[in-house]
Amino acid sequence: MKKEFSQAELAEIKTKDNKAFKGILIPSSEKDTIFIKLKSGYNIGILKSKIKGVKKLGKIKIERPEATQHKHNKALPTISILHTGGTVASEVDYSTGAVYPRFTPQEIVAKFPELGSAANIHSKLISNMFSEDMRFAHYNKIAKEIESEIKKGVNGIILTHGTDTMHYTSAALSFMLQDLPIPVILVGAQRSSDRGSSDAFLNLASAALFIAKTDFAGVAICMHANMNDNDCLILPGLKTRKMHSSRRDAFKAINAKPIARVNYYKQIAEFLTHDHKKISKGTKLKVHLLRENLRIGIVRSHPSMHATELKAYSNFHGLILEGTGLGHFPVSKIDQKTGENEKILSEIKKLAKKMPVFMTTQTIFGRVNINVYSTGRKLQEAGVIGNYSDMTAETAFVKLAYLLSNHKNKEEVKRLMNENLHGEISKRIVGEEEFL
Amino acid sequence: MKKEFSQAELAEIKTKDNKAFKGILIPSSEKDTIFIKLKSGYNIGILKSKIKGVKKLGKIKIERPEATQHKHNKALPTISILHTGGTVASEVDYSTGAVYPRFTPQEIVAKFPELGSAANIHSKLISNMFSEDMRFAHYNKIAKEIESEIKKGVNGIILTHGTDTMHYTSAALSFMLQDLPIPVILVGAQRSSDRGSSDAFLNLASAALFIAKTDFAGVAICMHANMNDNDCLILPGLKTRKMHSSRRDAFKAINAKPIARVNYYKQIAEFLTHDHKKISKGTKLKVHLLRENLRIGIVRSHPSMHATELKAYSNFHGLILEGTGLGHFPVSKIDQKTGENEKILSEIKKLAKKMPVFMTTQTIFGRVNINVYSTGRKLQEAGVIGNYSDMTAETAFVKLAYLLSNHKNKEEVKRLMNENLHGEISKRIVGEEEFL
Repeated sequence: MKKEFSQAELAEIKTKDNKAFKGILIPSSEKDTIFIKLKSGYNIGILKSKIKGVKKLGKIKIERPEATQHKHNKALPTISILHTGGTVASEVDYSTGAVYPRFTPQEIVAKFPELGSAANIHSKLISNMFSEDMRFAHYNKIAKEIESEIKKGVNGIILTHGTDTMHYTSAALSFMLQDLPIPVILVGAQRSSDRGSSDAFLNLASAALFIAKTDFAGVAICMHANMNDNDCLILPGLKTRKMHSSRRDAFKAINAKPIARVNYYKQIAEFLTHDHKKISKGTKLKVHLLRENLRIGIVRSHPSMHATELKAYSNFHGLILEGTGLGHFPVSKIDQKTGENEKILSEIKKLAKKMPVFMTTQTIFGRVNINVYSTGRKLQEAGVIGNYSDMTAETAFVKLAYLLSNHKNKEEVKRLMNENLHGEISKRIVGEEEFL
Repeated sequence: MKKEFSQAELAEIKTKDNKAFKGILIPSSEKDTIFIKLKSGYNIGILKSKIKGVKKLGKIKIERPEATQHKHNKALPTISILHTGGTVASEVDYSTGAVYPRFTPQEIVAKFPELGSAANIHSKLISNMFSEDMRFAHYNKIAKEIESEIKKGVNGIILTHGTDTMHYTSAALSFMLQDLPIPVILVGAQRSSDRGSSDAFLNLASAALFIAKTDFAGVAICMHANMNDNDCLILPGLKTRKMHSSRRDAFKAINAKPIARVNYYKQIAEFLTHDHKKISKGTKLKVHLLRENLRIGIVRSHPSMHATELKAYSNFHGLILEGTGLGHFPVSKIDQKTGENEKILSEIKKLAKKMPVFMTTQTIFGRVNINVYSTGRKLQEAGVIGNYSDMTAETAFVKLAYLLSNHKNKEEVKRLMNENLHGEISKRIVGEEEFL
């Protein structure tokens, strides 16, 4: 196999407070800072004003896998990898500092040769974006691409995705893709695939193994189960959240159990729940698109809140509230000069007359219960819905987008927000949810 | 001891879908719903339209502890319990449905007799409010009351507090009370103290034991360690968060370890970290109050965000951003008609010229790093601060309030926001924080 190389420069940086950092210099447009990639895989930036000296240690070559041809094997399932961007299928070019995607089927299999022995891999670039930039238009594009792959008869789809908003997309697709006949597994990575500590390979391979070995149909996320590079979890598309900014096991099921555990090295996929939907060739997918110009906000309560923070939403189509505890906002009359809390209550009342206003909790885990305290009952009287829901703010947000896009009657939207449609609201009693 | 009783009515409710619920009827002003307290301690509301029948099972008496006199014992430490409201020191009166506080020293010791054998208990009502209604004025009031108790020479203070925003208050007091010579332990309860499953007693008793048995000085939270009614944790005032809406072990240390574990039944208080500040009679407390009319917002990014969501903050004094992942907002140019992401970036730039705009992450756990991706560097160029911080949004919010209240120079406020002043920003490397 012919090898490709990229050139990089090694250096040691000594700081004025006598620390030393050794690594690969990363080109950057920031003039006051030098960035280096440490052996641990992390990039750090050091202010030039704090640097005593930079010792260049010479150039090194970094190997890139070569693109090879991948042959179709009729005995294996066929998996489409749809690429949207993010760390999972990207590499850093150390001669330019740019991150570039590796997305052709050949390149992905060259990068992850084991994938080719588990399945026939198709691959397509949908977009190459940071996931935090996603808008409803992108969800529609992804849903249509998935539909088109399913029409081709693939056995499963892997959607590579930036991790920042992967749980929003998984929830959106769970509502948008009804009667999904195959698995759609979202895969991200917390560290790019050219780092020694990258989770990209194991997440991708585990998703492919799960698709190849099981009868699961539906939308799920496949990411690391823990800090070790052994197990991945298949997490429910509607009840998962990124809970750490950098760890490989950042994704956690919220008020739910993981669907399955996958050990790629042992070639095991073990279900942890037993009520998943199954693959069904006869099922006809229905795609429900989103209205791309919908305006839906998320606003959280906090001490010393001001009513003006809610006024911004007066011309929106819907609003998700993130209350404290069981779902509270500062709405009680208290002995203070401003009377701000009463203004907040009247602002919520105004908004709830115009649009669905749905309560979630900023505790992340647990269920909303706005019957327990008078502050919660006041919110209900003001028109706030969401009592007894255990949806995350993220899932409630995309559910509201989905319902507002597909139902004209606002009262019907409110009724459906409070109902469990596809597993987004679990039936357990308060206090018995899965937790940390 | 003379006993006091409250009268309540037992009933069994049968629903149209053939479920039966037995419990104590709770008087309520809601006309379409009947509320009952189940044996488990939970209140549930059942719509009258869904009820087949209500069978009354007769009246029962509920015992209330009688107020008795508590004598000062010179051999024991003296603890002041300052009461601000919340579930911890309240009871439900089943004849009226009202929640009422038990806050005189006599009443608290009558309710929790074991407290009296560990310490001399003073008790004072500061307020009786839902913690979600707290404003900066209340933090000032609490800080002054604590100062006044310290002047009296007490050995420790327990602050009873609603759990919704207890972690905001603990963080605020950690900044406001400098050179605190004694322990100030915030205690809440997830279930009121007249429920069998209440956590109020153990949390209060464990806080008292911790104060009596150790040399800890500073602000901390004492709540259940797990679902069992055995261990409590002493959690760092600056690095703790309510992570479940209803469980007794809802409070978790974030990017930090708990300070200590307390087992009241075994009378053990064991430190889990070894760098706490110690009691010091010579230290002089300095109280830094907050400007009560400060306007500080918290705004989180989400897919399909609109720039108008940021415009509301243009006349604020400061803003906390809750970005995705390492600290990102949707600010990249993407192929879309609205160009909304560019508008968001220019809105952030405008705000950052007027006020400190500080980034945190909505993953809760982990550290902000806005050097890794270009989207983060754009935010830094726009003037956003907070790189490398691992403060929660809550701690960042009260820290900004504290700094804006006590420093006139805006650049100085920004510099101090990025620095670790009192343990609010930990020194660990990204990815190695304590986690779920």
